[in-house]
Amino acid sequence: MPDRTIYLDHAATTPVSPTALAAMLPYFGEIYGNASGIYRQGRLAKQALEEARRTVAEVLHAHPSEVVFTSCGSESDNLVLRGIMWAALRAGRGRHLIISAVEHKAVLETAHQLAELFDCEVTELPVDGYGRVDPDDLRRAIRPDTALISIMTANNEVGTLQPIAALAAVAHAYGIPFHTDAVQAPGHLPLDVQALGVDALALSGHKFYGPKGVGVTWLRSGLSLVPVQTGGSHEGKRRAGTENVAGIVGLAAALREAEDLRPAETTRLLELRNRLLDAIPALIPNTRISGHPHERLPHHASFLFAGIEIQGVLMGLDMAGIAASSGSACTSAAQTPSHVLTAMGVSAADAVGHLRLTLGRSTTAEDIEEVLRVLPPLVQRLRRLQSGNW
Amino acid sequence: MPDRTIYLDHAATTPVSPTALAAMLPYFGEIYGNASGIYRQGRLAKQALEEARRTVAEVLHAHPSEVVFTSCGSESDNLVLRGIMWAALRAGRGRHLIISAVEHKAVLETAHQLAELFDCEVTELPVDGYGRVDPDDLRRAIRPDTALISIMTANNEVGTLQPIAALAAVAHAYGIPFHTDAVQAPGHLPLDVQALGVDALALSGHKFYGPKGVGVTWLRSGLSLVPVQTGGSHEGKRRAGTENVAGIVGLAAALREAEDLRPAETTRLLELRNRLLDAIPALIPNTRISGHPHERLPHHASFLFAGIEIQGVLMGLDMAGIAASSGSACTSAAQTPSHVLTAMGVSAADAVGHLRLTLGRSTTAEDIEEVLRVLPPLVQRLRRLQSGNW
Repeated sequence: MPDRTIYLDHAATTPVSPTALAAMLPYFGEIYGNASGIYRQGRLAKQALEEARRTVAEVLHAHPSEVVFTSCGSESDNLVLRGIMWAALRAGRGRHLIISAVEHKAVLETAHQLAELFDCEVTELPVDGYGRVDPDDLRRAIRPDTALISIMTANNEVGTLQPIAALAAVAHAYGIPFHTDAVQAPGHLPLDVQALGVDALALSGHKFYGPKGVGVTWLRSGLSLVPVQTGGSHEGKRRAGTENVAGIVGLAAALREAEDLRPAETTRLLELRNRLLDAIPALIPNTRISGHPHERLPHHASFLFAGIEIQGVLMGLDMAGIAASSGSACTSAAQTPSHVLTAMGVSAADAVGHLRLTLGRSTTAEDIEEVLRVLPPLVQRLRRLQSGNW
Repeated sequence: MPDRTIYLDHAATTPVSPTALAAMLPYFGEIYGNASGIYRQGRLAKQALEEARRTVAEVLHAHPSEVVFTSCGSESDNLVLRGIMWAALRAGRGRHLIISAVEHKAVLETAHQLAELFDCEVTELPVDGYGRVDPDDLRRAIRPDTALISIMTANNEVGTLQPIAALAAVAHAYGIPFHTDAVQAPGHLPLDVQALGVDALALSGHKFYGPKGVGVTWLRSGLSLVPVQTGGSHEGKRRAGTENVAGIVGLAAALREAEDLRPAETTRLLELRNRLLDAIPALIPNTRISGHPHERLPHHASFLFAGIEIQGVLMGLDMAGIAASSGSACTSAAQTPSHVLTAMGVSAADAVGHLRLTLGRSTTAEDIEEVLRVLPPLVQRLRRLQSGNW
């Protein structure tokens, strides 16, 4: 096992940055009050919480009262889908939900459960070969009883960006609220909710060098929603549960830092990432890029290698000290062909040969060259093994 | 402001213990992998997660596969109530839910929402003047369509213990699953789920010197439940979302420590707490203990002071460096008479004079004597002010 891991799975998770960790530490032992307490310890916790809320609102170009802290990106998506659909059902405003076929499971499975158990109807919009939704398809799918549209900002598996502003404009032409799972965006894409024109947005701390176990749902003021986790009147009665002050402070510090570093990091990572996109198909025959060639996350490279199952490649890379994945960490245990690749028209036989390399702050040019040394012989050896020619 | 705070709101929250924090720290920066990753970073995270699961199971005398990690006690209660009632509704096994009138809001509000939006019917069992549920009342409330019974182990506001084993036995005589919100129990009461005879149990890390933002739902194997937060197949498909590895590791270390310290701490805190229960009604006229005099949490003292609103007392205590509360941190912002005290037969006029003092590891005999010095003149002065005799 080499000394240093070349970690290329930043779309799955990132380490907590020293800045975010330093911001969090006082809230474990020193300032530990319950933010609902009337005494000094409680007030200090409450101040930290509201300062974090202002920071997040500032990055999103939103109002602090619109920021709801949750426990993760999945909860953030669940809150929007369940909360808005339940509110619509209760008010008789409709039962129809539109999503795309390439959403994260947190949206997809929630939509399915809403259909199965709560009398909603779901339309899954198709995508093109790059994984993109066509705004015209959205327009055609809208019905008089459509209560919510949810389309992700950027795909976790193949990196493709959706035309969010155009899609949100279609939704608004029909007066329908538009949610976007923006979990992959911070540090890589602008997060101005006014420019995006969305009405709700989900973030997850650990995707941008903040801690695991904390997320954000941003909800445009006026958007009505039934709370999904009920109890105390925390988070403006939108999400019950004692506030995770340390986690929230860490998330806010990490989001601020990710936004501050974004211009320089995007330039740096684009160059490294483009080297992978150019070199890997050139070095390894029968290989193609998955997702859009340039309308994609700047740190995200992904490939389809014909004729192999990727597990062997991932294990070989791990042996060489390179951490990578097949696409979604959330479904990697499942071993079924990715719903994203399937929706893009990739055959089940090809989909099992999918590799995702996502770069981050620790990634160097040397790391990329090491991948280019290790990967081609590994793929070739596995192709020989798996085809039985050995 | 005095140098040192005398913190007497341990039922609201506790600081993270040095043991728990030390256990957590490596999982922020050093071992940051996504527990679903196939590579070394991911495997190390997965190992830590499963080790934490075994630790929690050991303390509960349960099987690791029965432990579901959540984001807090409120989520844990929500998961059980929503998940089991939705499963029962789907299977046509009933729509009736029984709770007590003194449950935490995480149970109470969830039950109300299940009734309001999801066609459930809820019975709230009455309590006696101490806040206790009578097992005979439970027996009489059971119907052929009762699908779940949820009664807390110990009340957060008045400290009263419920006769959980007797209540669970009634439930089981009718084949109905029994859940208990045991959020106040760790470190103070035994947590053996086999001895308690319960089928589901909720815990919250920050109540026992673990971090905020992480909780446990224990579910007896075989108990069927619809997932309430959907997405990836984490936590045995019972709770989607990237695992909060650091938080989970911290919770497990804190739970183990709280259980190890329990015998000695219970003896020590009982003595200090009994000093408060004896001295405060003796020193302050027109004062009585709320909750049961001895069937109560060993670190929990609470009082009703006739003729005052407690906010002034809390502010006065805070000025004197003593952190205390009126009952539930989760409802303290609400300023309405406590539903717990109301259910116990306390008038609205008396309920506003409720003070809760909950002791913990930092509490010393000197702290208690300081409270006994500061509190009586404070109450007397406020009584004079508030009655207008000044």
